[in-house]
Amino acid sequence: MRHDLAEEKVFKDPVHKYIYVQDQTIWNLINTKEFQRLRRIRQLGTSYLTFHGAEHSRFSHSLGVYEITRKIISQFERNKYPDWPEEERLVSLCASLLHDVGHGPFSHSIEDVFDTHHEEWTCRIIMEDTEINRVLRSVSEDFPAKVASVICKTYPQPIVISLVSSQMDADRMDYLLRDAYYTGVNYGTFDLDRILRVLRPYRDKIVVKESGMHAVEDYLMSRYQMYWQVYFHPVTRSSEIILRQIFRRAKELYAGTYTFQFMMEPLEKLLSNDLDVAAYLQLDEALVQTVFSQWMNEQDQLLANLCERFIDRALYKYVTVEQMDETLNAQIRANFEKIGLHPDYHLEIDYPFDLPYHVYRPGNSEGEEKAPILLLGSKEQLEDISDKSDIIRSIAGLHRGKYHLYYPEEELLKHNNQLDDEIRQLFGV
Amino acid sequence: MRHDLAEEKVFKDPVHKYIYVQDQTIWNLINTKEFQRLRRIRQLGTSYLTFHGAEHSRFSHSLGVYEITRKIISQFERNKYPDWPEEERLVSLCASLLHDVGHGPFSHSIEDVFDTHHEEWTCRIIMEDTEINRVLRSVSEDFPAKVASVICKTYPQPIVISLVSSQMDADRMDYLLRDAYYTGVNYGTFDLDRILRVLRPYRDKIVVKESGMHAVEDYLMSRYQMYWQVYFHPVTRSSEIILRQIFRRAKELYAGTYTFQFMMEPLEKLLSNDLDVAAYLQLDEALVQTVFSQWMNEQDQLLANLCERFIDRALYKYVTVEQMDETLNAQIRANFEKIGLHPDYHLEIDYPFDLPYHVYRPGNSEGEEKAPILLLGSKEQLEDISDKSDIIRSIAGLHRGKYHLYYPEEELLKHNNQLDDEIRQLFGV
Amino acid sequence: MRHDLAEEKVFKDPVHKYIYVQDQTIWNLINTKEFQRLRRIRQLGTSYLTFHGAEHSRFSHSLGVYEITRKIISQFERNKYPDWPEEERLVSLCASLLHDVGHGPFSHSIEDVFDTHHEEWTCRIIMEDTEINRVLRSVSEDFPAKVASVICKTYPQPIVISLVSSQMDADRMDYLLRDAYYTGVNYGTFDLDRILRVLRPYRDKIVVKESGMHAVEDYLMSRYQMYWQVYFHPVTRSSEIILRQIFRRAKELYAGTYTFQFMMEPLEKLLSNDLDVAAYLQLDEALVQTVFSQWMNEQDQLLANLCERFIDRALYKYVTVEQMDETLNAQIRANFEKIGLHPDYHLEIDYPFDLPYHVYRPGNSEGEEKAPILLLGSKEQLEDISDKSDIIRSIAGLHRGKYHLYYPEEELLKHNNQLDDEIRQLFGV
Amino acid sequence: MRHDLAEEKVFKDPVHKYIYVQDQTIWNLINTKEFQRLRRIRQLGTSYLTFHGAEHSRFSHSLGVYEITRKIISQFERNKYPDWPEEERLVSLCASLLHDVGHGPFSHSIEDVFDTHHEEWTCRIIMEDTEINRVLRSVSEDFPAKVASVICKTYPQPIVISLVSSQMDADRMDYLLRDAYYTGVNYGTFDLDRILRVLRPYRDKIVVKESGMHAVEDYLMSRYQMYWQVYFHPVTRSSEIILRQIFRRAKELYAGTYTFQFMMEPLEKLLSNDLDVAAYLQLDEALVQTVFSQWMNEQDQLLANLCERFIDRALYKYVTVEQMDETLNAQIRANFEKIGLHPDYHLEIDYPFDLPYHVYRPGNSEGEEKAPILLLGSKEQLEDISDKSDIIRSIAGLHRGKYHLYYPEEELLKHNNQLDDEIRQLFGV
Repeated sequence: MRHDLAEEKVFKDPVHKYIYVQDQTIWNLINTKEFQRLRRIRQLGTSYLTFHGAEHSRFSHSLGVYEITRKIISQFERNKYPDWPEEERLVSLCASLLHDVGHGPFSHSIEDVFDTHHEEWTCRIIMEDTEINRVLRSVSEDFPAKVASVICKTYPQPIVISLVSSQMDADRMDYLLRDAYYTGVNYGTFDLDRILRVLRPYRDKIVVKESGMHAVEDYLMSRYQMYWQVYFHPVTRSSEIILRQIFRRAKELYAGTYTFQFMMEPLEKLLSNDLDVAAYLQLDEALVQTVFSQWMNEQDQLLANLCERFIDRALYKYVTVEQMDETLNAQIRANFEKIGLHPDYHLEIDYPFDLPYHVYRPGNSEGEEKAPILLLGSKEQLEDISDKSDIIRSIAGLHRGKYHLYYPEEELLKHNNQLDDEIRQLFGV
Repeated sequence: MRHDLAEEKVFKDPVHKYIYVQDQTIWNLINTKEFQRLRRIRQLGTSYLTFHGAEHSRFSHSLGVYEITRKIISQFERNKYPDWPEEERLVSLCASLLHDVGHGPFSHSIEDVFDTHHEEWTCRIIMEDTEINRVLRSVSEDFPAKVASVICKTYPQPIVISLVSSQMDADRMDYLLRDAYYTGVNYGTFDLDRILRVLRPYRDKIVVKESGMHAVEDYLMSRYQMYWQVYFHPVTRSSEIILRQIFRRAKELYAGTYTFQFMMEPLEKLLSNDLDVAAYLQLDEALVQTVFSQWMNEQDQLLANLCERFIDRALYKYVTVEQMDETLNAQIRANFEKIGLHPDYHLEIDYPFDLPYHVYRPGNSEGEEKAPILLLGSKEQLEDISDKSDIIRSIAGLHRGKYHLYYPEEELLKHNNQLDDEIRQLFGV
Repeated sequence: MRHDLAEEKVFKDPVHKYIYVQDQTIWNLINTKEFQRLRRIRQLGTSYLTFHGAEHSRFSHSLGVYEITRKIISQFERNKYPDWPEEERLVSLCASLLHDVGHGPFSHSIEDVFDTHHEEWTCRIIMEDTEINRVLRSVSEDFPAKVASVICKTYPQPIVISLVSSQMDADRMDYLLRDAYYTGVNYGTFDLDRILRVLRPYRDKIVVKESGMHAVEDYLMSRYQMYWQVYFHPVTRSSEIILRQIFRRAKELYAGTYTFQFMMEPLEKLLSNDLDVAAYLQLDEALVQTVFSQWMNEQDQLLANLCERFIDRALYKYVTVEQMDETLNAQIRANFEKIGLHPDYHLEIDYPFDLPYHVYRPGNSEGEEKAPILLLGSKEQLEDISDKSDIIRSIAGLHRGKYHLYYPEEELLKHNNQLDDEIRQLFGV
Repeated sequence: MRHDLAEEKVFKDPVHKYIYVQDQTIWNLINTKEFQRLRRIRQLGTSYLTFHGAEHSRFSHSLGVYEITRKIISQFERNKYPDWPEEERLVSLCASLLHDVGHGPFSHSIEDVFDTHHEEWTCRIIMEDTEINRVLRSVSEDFPAKVASVICKTYPQPIVISLVSSQMDADRMDYLLRDAYYTGVNYGTFDLDRILRVLRPYRDKIVVKESGMHAVEDYLMSRYQMYWQVYFHPVTRSSEIILRQIFRRAKELYAGTYTFQFMMEPLEKLLSNDLDVAAYLQLDEALVQTVFSQWMNEQDQLLANLCERFIDRALYKYVTVEQMDETLNAQIRANFEKIGLHPDYHLEIDYPFDLPYHVYRPGNSEGEEKAPILLLGSKEQLEDISDKSDIIRSIAGLHRGKYHLYYPEEELLKHNNQLDDEIRQLFGV
């Protein structure tokens, strides 16, 4: 229990009212330039193009995750639960605060195109020569490695990993509340106070008192709603597709003989697969947007047009299709080519089921990295929430099965007389 | 009364729940690239460095101002008030939506250093060759000029000017609520619904039914609180000072013989006082931040250091002083020079009273451009709110009188043994 | 479209912010003594003994139902939907406002014991010699009958019945929001604005635009949560049981030779099954509580003790049992009798599944009186929400199956040495 | 620091989210019948006739005052402030919880007519033979006297009195927030969390850290608004006047030869000035309302009519008058008598300035019983808030000066042809 700041510091926060900092280490971490950089990375990527309020940054979210973790631990300490190892407080708080520090600009698109992983960058930023590393080393020489190992789930105390990462961890709880607040969508709210009150350290896990089951159900329902209302919103998907196309095109051009009229070093290192920590840290959304603004004047028309679409928010439209097969796919592509469109860039078929989404996955699910939510009964027995809650069991496996086709509507309208009738009908042009 | 969209469009908005668009013209204006650019300009400039939630853009605010104006007009139409000229609806809505479209990045600092004015740019963007101009001209050839004249207050219908600009206009009402929401500071809330219900068109003015006086008092109290809690927060002032120093230094260097290692065209045009509308529109906060990130490597140490301070949020600290005079000022400057600091860049004496701030200025106040708030009594008499409300009269003239001194604390600490005793005591080093 | 009040009247309401009255008839109805009487009937019966905030009355709720109906109709009128018969506005508003006017004190318990029905009383209050009847007759001689027939679902315009009564009607929407607000339980909130925007008159029904499906899901989830968190809360059930026992005991005593030391006429008429409208209207919760306070001094110990339990909130405790059969039941009763308890009064076995509760019942469900929720697709096809929404289908049939046993804990503790071991274990005494 | 409940108990509360009980003594006090009786006394008396949401009870408020006090003490303990005497925790909590336990139904009217004082009854309920007294005595024999002496401000530890009673005490903070919540008026909200964080025990007082000044200003502004918007609302005043007239008339009749057709013992003891604790505790709002309902049939027409007005909410109307003098008063009374009205019952001239109201009274104010709000500066100096805050100084002495005349409008309308012209004009009949 280190609380070594002479006076508690506070941040005003719209979601948690206040965020309390009691440790010099936490205070110093927040003031590092690597952590401050998170102010230049939006929490929801391109969602602000759908929900104009969603302009909040990963900086805000990271503070929120820290604060929820602090409240959980503080409840454990207040109640003196024997299964909570009190000496793990600082490492838990640091891991919570820093878990997203390796996120780059528009992470999902970049990771997809360039096969990078933000978790890896998080660990490198913690371990290599950075201000964060220096602050952590001032606790103890092995402290950076401890914090990193919590994040990559190799820390020897499983309860700390369970605290920092599970299917109902501080990360998810903060982002649901925060994204709901900033988008203005009120589906994402649930009773955080109540959930915090029913969490218990139990052996090497964080579990939930059985009486809190309904609060957990409500949390999972919020999750369900936020997924379909916000995270998978087709307009957001459309902007992500544009973004990915820009990166793909730039990568393709860079690999070829094309000479860019405008280029900035950190982005070039990304294109050449040559990023080090210093360059990675310079990659923020301001830089990406600025480069895209300049690329609107590139000679490659495809790149220029995609950048214009992104900057001026002239996104692809979409239609919804129940079924999709190879034949239809081929016909659409042929039609697109016929009118001069590039089916690899001007068409994207999106199937949400491909997305790694589950409201909840029971403990024995394959491929689920995050710990399940366990209820602690009055006789100390543990049960998976999906065994106790009918409603959770009902929705745990639900998924939707519609295809969305994204495309440049203006182009189709311009040449619609050259399209097959079925295709015209499909796209309504 | 044009409501010509086949189906009303809505935007989800955290402050007003929903923003309703019923006119094709409004819809088209929102989709212009000049209006979309407002997404890249923060509403509160550098306040996000103090209140991490305050990352909202002028795009959101502009939609909010439009929505409040729409609600006011819709109330007037519903009640069929004879003093409201119904044909002025669209021009009023367009002026509300576009009133901030000429804002640049971190407007206050740029306007201060380069003597530009966002109102002027707003009018140029409306009148010159832009998408906005084209949309407005599709209404009628003289429509752009009409909209611009509402914004610059020369429109022949005074009631429209009164609607769009007064001491309790849609602009102020939206920003108080919005800034309160995003900072998380709950001082800025007031009962918007009630205020909207007591507004009345009366002859050539928008006035307030007398029974709404307390709601107006509450609005002005919110304003008072937001000024002192948020808008004049010393940490925000500190970041604005850094920003202004950067621009001043860059301007100074550019005017001399210095060669910048990194420069981008729109910024160069700003430095050379050579901006046209096209270049101005490229000046957004992403570009400014990206340039500053690069300037951290400039050879001019002063510029590089200021940029680093801004990007990494290593702001100047401040002390509060009751009195300041020439002698003290000179002594401080001499001390700063003695330890190698540049008193024009490393010191700023800030006196909030200089700021153009008044909770409320009665109708006969000199120099107040915004119309006063008039109460409409039951006998159709009009009275200035400060004549009816004791509390408003009491605070209308209040001001604070403390000096804040901003400076680089680390530098003073490093060399504190070379400073005069009074100076050391003053800065607490 | 009658809007005949010179100036709109407003009520401040915590749930809807304001309630707007535009019709003289509505205003007059609210001011009748029969409607004002609803201030003396709590909306949630005895729930205030569990959730201390739930002290709101049926008066508030009735205004809320009216307001939601007014908003729906006003949206229909604004959009000029051809399927909405505009002449049905006033009858719809009156029916909404008055639908609960026949509720008595603690309705559920009284209806249960005395086999009365509040719907019947509502119709009698509308049709017999009351202020409400006079106000309605001032519209037209047959207007009271029209309003009553909407409430009892025999009105010839089915769309009006669909508006006033369905599985997502103004009644349910208001009480979920209102009960959530007053209890402080935040499970009951959903996006009312959005639901109001997606409702459509379609042929003779009110349906939901397909795009509003998620909002409806959220409304049904709120309903699910409120049922289990609030409406079926075991402590509330316990207080209802006490109340029902009081009424049962009083009825039993009255039917016998017992002479009450204290009695008031309206209650006596209830006991003697001799209520007319005038007496019924005097039956409010103040009267019932006052009589119970006096009955604490009755010579019948059972009655006196039950009243004391109710007034002083000394409720029965409960235990939860997975299974219950005749044998166990008989054993418990025998044990209770052994220690001098009266198993018909000191024991109640409650099984929530008996309660007429369903989150949602598809259109073809037997015994469901309320119209289903239909989605209107883009091709004008109608589908039951449970056919489109996986999550609704999943939960439509869910129920819980645990028994709760309610009993006077003190008595069991006092005599626990006389109880069978299983019984002691079961009750934990 | 006694926290002796095995497991913390919680109440769901709409204002504070949850109310936490950690002490067996507090739990037992809440469960006494005298405390439960507060459920039958409304917090805002007749305000529910103006704001239909304001149906909350003194039970809810008392829990809220307790919770705020608990939070303050818990902050003091967490920070280990040396000036806080930790052994005073329980007595402070009990005094907070019980401070209103002596309130009767519609206290203000009853106290006015019968010259009773709720503080006195609070002390008697604590000291005489009650369940509350028994619970307190189980702590120690002198504990009831200690708790009572905190409430009547004779307790030897002044810091405890300062905590429980001041111009910014838990009582005021809870009622502002709670009344704002239940009325739906959002003027009464302020940042409770922030105020709790800046309170400090300092020598024998509770003071406010200087940096919290704006939060205190905001609290006082809320108070100002709530007074004028809610507490002094003329419709509420009208219903209080009716109520007072009923009590006055009943007292007058009882003192004479009149025989009541209906009477209940506790009320008779009030009329005969013969109340003891047992009878006082039976006097709740249910009983008063029930008696009034019966009195609607009394032979005394004045009493019957006043009761009908109260029960059916047929209140007196009011007009506002700037000036009032003896001549006008006499003329009005003469006119009222001329048309058969009783000027002592059918007329009331109300002047809000008579009300014991002040937003804030500085420490040296005469007649102010509640301790002033002191700011603790960085150099440990104490200053009255009105010396530091311009806005508080400005409003501390403000008052309004309009007369309201309350009267039965129907009667004046019926006989308006017999009234003087000035009087007709004055009352608009």
